[in-house]
Amino acid sequence: MPTYKAPVEDFRFLLNDVFHVDSHTELPGYSDLTPELIDATLAEAAKLCEHVLAPLNRVGDTEGCTRHDDASVTTPKGFKEAFKQFSDGGWGSICFPAEFGGQGLPVALAGVITEFLAGSNLAFWMYPGLTQGAVAALLSHGTPQLKATYLPNLIACKWTGTMNLTESHCGTDLGMLRTKAKPQADGTYRITGTKIFISAGEHDMAENIVHLVLARLEGAPAGVKGISLFVVPKFLPKADGTLGARNTVSCGSIEHKMGIHGNSTCVMNFDNATGWLVGAPNRGLNAMFTMMNHERLGVGTHGIGMSEVAYQNAVAYAKDRIQGRSLSGKKFPDKPADPIIVHPDVRRMLLTMRANTEASRALIVWTGLRYDIATRSPDEKAREQAEDHMGLMTPIIKGCCTDIGLSSAVMGQQIWGGHGYVAENGMEQFVRDARINQIYEGANGIQALDLVGRKLGMNGGRAVQSFFSEVGAYLKAQSKVQGMAEYANPVALSLGHLQQATQWLAKNAATNPENVGAGSYDYMNLFGLVGQGYMWCRMVEAANGKLSAPGAAPNPHLSAKLVTARFFVQRMLPETSTQLARISSGAETMMSLPAEAF
Amino acid sequence: MPTYKAPVEDFRFLLNDVFHVDSHTELPGYSDLTPELIDATLAEAAKLCEHVLAPLNRVGDTEGCTRHDDASVTTPKGFKEAFKQFSDGGWGSICFPAEFGGQGLPVALAGVITEFLAGSNLAFWMYPGLTQGAVAALLSHGTPQLKATYLPNLIACKWTGTMNLTESHCGTDLGMLRTKAKPQADGTYRITGTKIFISAGEHDMAENIVHLVLARLEGAPAGVKGISLFVVPKFLPKADGTLGARNTVSCGSIEHKMGIHGNSTCVMNFDNATGWLVGAPNRGLNAMFTMMNHERLGVGTHGIGMSEVAYQNAVAYAKDRIQGRSLSGKKFPDKPADPIIVHPDVRRMLLTMRANTEASRALIVWTGLRYDIATRSPDEKAREQAEDHMGLMTPIIKGCCTDIGLSSAVMGQQIWGGHGYVAENGMEQFVRDARINQIYEGANGIQALDLVGRKLGMNGGRAVQSFFSEVGAYLKAQSKVQGMAEYANPVALSLGHLQQATQWLAKNAATNPENVGAGSYDYMNLFGLVGQGYMWCRMVEAANGKLSAPGAAPNPHLSAKLVTARFFVQRMLPETSTQLARISSGAETMMSLPAEAF
Repeated sequence: MPTYKAPVEDFRFLLNDVFHVDSHTELPGYSDLTPELIDATLAEAAKLCEHVLAPLNRVGDTEGCTRHDDASVTTPKGFKEAFKQFSDGGWGSICFPAEFGGQGLPVALAGVITEFLAGSNLAFWMYPGLTQGAVAALLSHGTPQLKATYLPNLIACKWTGTMNLTESHCGTDLGMLRTKAKPQADGTYRITGTKIFISAGEHDMAENIVHLVLARLEGAPAGVKGISLFVVPKFLPKADGTLGARNTVSCGSIEHKMGIHGNSTCVMNFDNATGWLVGAPNRGLNAMFTMMNHERLGVGTHGIGMSEVAYQNAVAYAKDRIQGRSLSGKKFPDKPADPIIVHPDVRRMLLTMRANTEASRALIVWTGLRYDIATRSPDEKAREQAEDHMGLMTPIIKGCCTDIGLSSAVMGQQIWGGHGYVAENGMEQFVRDARINQIYEGANGIQALDLVGRKLGMNGGRAVQSFFSEVGAYLKAQSKVQGMAEYANPVALSLGHLQQATQWLAKNAATNPENVGAGSYDYMNLFGLVGQGYMWCRMVEAANGKLSAPGAAPNPHLSAKLVTARFFVQRMLPETSTQLARISSGAETMMSLPAEAF
Repeated sequence: MPTYKAPVEDFRFLLNDVFHVDSHTELPGYSDLTPELIDATLAEAAKLCEHVLAPLNRVGDTEGCTRHDDASVTTPKGFKEAFKQFSDGGWGSICFPAEFGGQGLPVALAGVITEFLAGSNLAFWMYPGLTQGAVAALLSHGTPQLKATYLPNLIACKWTGTMNLTESHCGTDLGMLRTKAKPQADGTYRITGTKIFISAGEHDMAENIVHLVLARLEGAPAGVKGISLFVVPKFLPKADGTLGARNTVSCGSIEHKMGIHGNSTCVMNFDNATGWLVGAPNRGLNAMFTMMNHERLGVGTHGIGMSEVAYQNAVAYAKDRIQGRSLSGKKFPDKPADPIIVHPDVRRMLLTMRANTEASRALIVWTGLRYDIATRSPDEKAREQAEDHMGLMTPIIKGCCTDIGLSSAVMGQQIWGGHGYVAENGMEQFVRDARINQIYEGANGIQALDLVGRKLGMNGGRAVQSFFSEVGAYLKAQSKVQGMAEYANPVALSLGHLQQATQWLAKNAATNPENVGAGSYDYMNLFGLVGQGYMWCRMVEAANGKLSAPGAAPNPHLSAKLVTARFFVQRMLPETSTQLARISSGAETMMSLPAEAF
């Protein structure tokens, strides 16, 4: 069975040495963020994930969830107890305001824990994970009364949350949704409709389940401008905060899925259920996007968590499994064969997984830090810049990091050979579980379209220009630093490809809007590679700094950074020229085949 | 539930118009190969695959196989009856000699049927599919008596065959295998040992199961030079050909796998089981390689069958599912949204699947034709050239086409969005099933190593030079033909990349043998892309010829070839420059990280 070890050392390096989070004392929640606090928090989270959640990962897969005749749902054995440990440990409250029982710590820190949780047990993590999104939406858009009723219970994980968007005929295109909301004299609404693919929609782990539901008010305009957001609890809270009557919302069935069996993916039936409006009428999509953006960063993090655990278990097998001999002569002549980690092609896969994981992890920490600046900084200009960055990077992180999650899971399984195809060994579960991250919270093609169609042009391209300036200036400076040119120069070349691609899209969008869509996916990946390249330079700079400090001890973690970065720039980064060529070829080859000829 | 339609028209085009199989009258089995015979055979095969096997594909997945206490195995409901239809139709006998009850038709034709079978029901096809490999091994290496006893029954599918290579501690590195064979006074052998991952190892569909087993004779040299091949039947045939005593070989358990649940993957226990030697003592690996090469081409074909079925069902969904609006304005203003096939990124996925599938299919037909020349031509020189081609292309087809099988399955599922993750819709099964093709019959990394380590250098590089000459001369000539330059020139550029990569490997193998392994996977993919590019040019040439013939009617299938080829050269082929860059970066970045630092 696979094991999981939380990558504490790598996060410590990123938080302390690359991004110097303790220097951000201007931000609430950062003032106490000493290396010691980081160490203590990561160590505790690691304990939970390694010893409680990881061992339940395969249990969740094999048992799955069961819906009973009374529409109740039982989660896999051990999940309920683990959830109690999770909530007792306060792991659902890290980055939320103290006012509602939260710990007020940085989102950047909460993101670290998200990676641990997703890497150890994605299906489990989704129960409290969706709750975090519900909290984010209520924090931004709920009335004081809704906040007072729901937030303390959600943040304490006494209750859990869900997102009810999708209906069978619409997911991406929410403008078509049909669920109806009818205002009542008492200020509540009656919600009627059916939602599908509702993660954690029903389960036995919490007292109450709080559904955030998109529905259409009677007489609302057609399309996305007629959608409102409602909170619809499973049990109606009484005035004193205790639970009252059972609401008329229930689980109609559980989906049979490719993976994440431990999470109950429900069809939810709302039958004149009582709900409360969140935010303004007909502005539900706005409110929901607060939740979505939070979730999309989280889902990108899931991808990296899965990539990490697949990597760890592939490495363990590659060191242990003996098969064949090294091309450069026997490495273990006393054994009947060498461990397969001597074979270059096995290393190609391991290093690809590793380079992708570590650079993406850095991107996520960097963006988490900007999230905190965007929401907490006293400096308006800093908030604006950070928000620009967030908007730009969110689709890239969601799209690229979840693709990496799958590719790492597939490579990890491949290293295990035939044994990787056998369920008991657990490597194939990673592939099945990782696959969902590319689909939910906006399929990756939608992320790419969000990037090129909305984020690039926003405020006259302010966000992307700011990215180019930051990265360009950094690379220019680093290319002159001893030992940095071999990293900075190739990244600068790829940054050039990204800039050319950006110009090409800007220039050719007007002549044919399909050009933008045609290049979107490659553009997202090109941006992701440049982002990763920048992160590799930042990491190498920090590692070099520590390694060359007077009296520094040898540090294999830091030395490995230099080698992995070299692999990245020599083996992975050259892809950007191909991406540029694809983007510049335009839409013609894609659009000229009539639909009926497919 | 997914459906399957055999791509009859495309194969007709390849066999008749691109490769002109009816001109090969010098080859036994080809003299009667008229377009009419091809049509009739493909139509019959299509009927079986579309109406009998495809509907059983999900049944096989959900039911799986069951091992009972008496070590017998039950296959999924309907498999047994389908197998009877398969054998009654003579589908297991197409390309085998009439002497043993075969139809003596070309392997190139049998390969077409293999694609249909794998595309409609891979798990089912593997039962008779493994039998084909057993027949190939016995045909080449069996004694006249073994042939007389086994071949007619195997070819008629009264009996089925298996390949018993892998043991729990060795798969790739068969030199370590431990199964023992002890000679008996009567000329038989007693086989003892345990084999794993034995596809179709035990089942209820045939009277007898004929295991081809690698084992080590007492006192045999260590390593691969001490391995012999044996035939070990489940029931011992009596002198009159009827079935005698039950042999002491049995199924110990069935693996729980990621996919291909309908096929019984068995642990096989040989407990002093009676067997007969096939081929010379200690030359078993040679004999097995006859089987393996046949199987590897077949497995590549599986990949393309899976790619085709994933494509078909993705297209159907993309035309049906309405979601969002076209970037260039509403295409169906009367509907609430446009079908998703209007979106460029959906088309990017569909065209990638399609371009990969059609070009790889052509590669397989081309190589199947060479297989027939290699084994049947009266011209020794032609046989030698064809055998060179076969040796070179087998690992490329196995590796590249099975990678394509997975990537198409993943893209097909992605187009279905959340509905693709739900088991009932069947798209996720394609991903799970397609995954095995990259692993079995030599994991794809082994194919890449076979290509660069053995096939490139064989006979002083004769095979690869012959490929370069053929493709180079063709492209040079075509670049001057009206309407062909836009295809031929980019492929010629990529051929240049392949030639540079080949030279780089030849030059740098001596300084560091790891350079060859480090570049192997990219080299295989680079070769695959150039091969595909050549096929696209051949197809465009043939399509142009037919479309411009006097009085030719409009033909959407042929017109689509031109568009898909353009997509291929503009969007997919540019990857070769990246592959060359990777290969030329050498082994240093891969090999310098010490194993303990991973």
